[in-house]
Amino acid sequence: MGDTDTAASAPEPPRPVSTPALVVQPERASARKHRAILAAAEEMFLRSGYLGTNMDELAARSQVSKQTVYKHFGSKEALFVELVTSMTDAASSTVHNEIPDAAAAADVPDYLRDYAERQLAVVMTPRLLQLRRLVIGEVSRFPELARALYERGPRRAMDSLAAAFARLDDRGLLRVPDPEAAASHFNWLVMGEPVNRAMLLGDAAIPDESWRRKHVHDAVDVFLAAHGRG
Amino acid sequence: MGDTDTAASAPEPPRPVSTPALVVQPERASARKHRAILAAAEEMFLRSGYLGTNMDELAARSQVSKQTVYKHFGSKEALFVELVTSMTDAASSTVHNEIPDAAAAADVPDYLRDYAERQLAVVMTPRLLQLRRLVIGEVSRFPELARALYERGPRRAMDSLAAAFARLDDRGLLRVPDPEAAASHFNWLVMGEPVNRAMLLGDAAIPDESWRRKHVHDAVDVFLAAHGRG
Repeated sequence: MGDTDTAASAPEPPRPVSTPALVVQPERASARKHRAILAAAEEMFLRSGYLGTNMDELAARSQVSKQTVYKHFGSKEALFVELVTSMTDAASSTVHNEIPDAAAAADVPDYLRDYAERQLAVVMTPRLLQLRRLVIGEVSRFPELARALYERGPRRAMDSLAAAFARLDDRGLLRVPDPEAAASHFNWLVMGEPVNRAMLLGDAAIPDESWRRKHVHDAVDVFLAAHGRG
Repeated sequence: MGDTDTAASAPEPPRPVSTPALVVQPERASARKHRAILAAAEEMFLRSGYLGTNMDELAARSQVSKQTVYKHFGSKEALFVELVTSMTDAASSTVHNEIPDAAAAADVPDYLRDYAERQLAVVMTPRLLQLRRLVIGEVSRFPELARALYERGPRRAMDSLAAAFARLDDRGLLRVPDPEAAASHFNWLVMGEPVNRAMLLGDAAIPDESWRRKHVHDAVDVFLAAHGRG
């Protein structure tokens, strides 16, 4: 530990071959605190809600001073906004980055079932469902936050579905005169029942894989009866 | 006002022919207080949430003592439960008591559109949407309450739809091998988009009549493509 002071005060110290574990550079310490605060915020906001979360306790759990929390996030409100948008974006990207390309999809029923199962697997997790409950409960206090969750979550999903359906229509694989309406129908045929059950019945209502498979199969059949070709 | 005392102390006073307006019988005063407390509770819980509602303020708004509030409802929690169940049951009964009989329905598309428009008209009101947001936000504190809203709201709607679809299948007017799944599909084709938009986007997202009419028309078309006959 003899070179701790040297490492901390030098602007960009050349990294010694065997850096002792306790030599922490300032930027890293700051990033680590940032993550620790966000992790504590996730746990506390999701469990206790916005009003029920106490910033003294949050600082203590993050192992930083309350001043540090405010230095990083400005306010309790800003911290809440950061938490909601980062969780929503991460989930949304997980669904969308993994979507197979509609231009290359060979089997449309398979393509649709694959998409639906992917989306259910990401959304139907206790953290994201609790986030959604929390944001819905806070709509009147934070209308812009709920709008952000809508735009970055279901709206983004339906926009990308509409684009995929238009592509599949172009290729003669679906009949979709109104891609936006079709995307909404598909989205709610798949997500309506499980999401709304979980909203009100809690995590115990998160469906298991066999329920999901049958549900997706049925939903895709209804969609294809209306929009399939042949 | 000379006989006020007499009226209040006699157990069941014979009603005089010309009762002065200020002579209030005990039962009526009690029922009036009960209603006043529930009305104030509706306004305050829907606006400020469970934690944000203060019982002193609630008593003041109801123009009764705090003791009277507790005498009528036992606790803040019991008052909240009473409010949620009474609002849910009233809405649910409005939808269900007015459903045309599936056994007599002549035109199935008309029957389905009529049902869907009725349900949207009842559910898509600011009070009921705010109640739903509030209950969703409080799932972890009041799981039984959210379950009651689910059972008395969407579950009751889907059970009655499933029974109607089974009847229409019997009559050869629909093809519904699994009435429960079909009821869920129909319910979420109709309710998914508007309810979930309003949950996150607030009352400004409550759709107008022309949006609702097109939406119901499209949703019924998708449903009939899967379940219609001919």
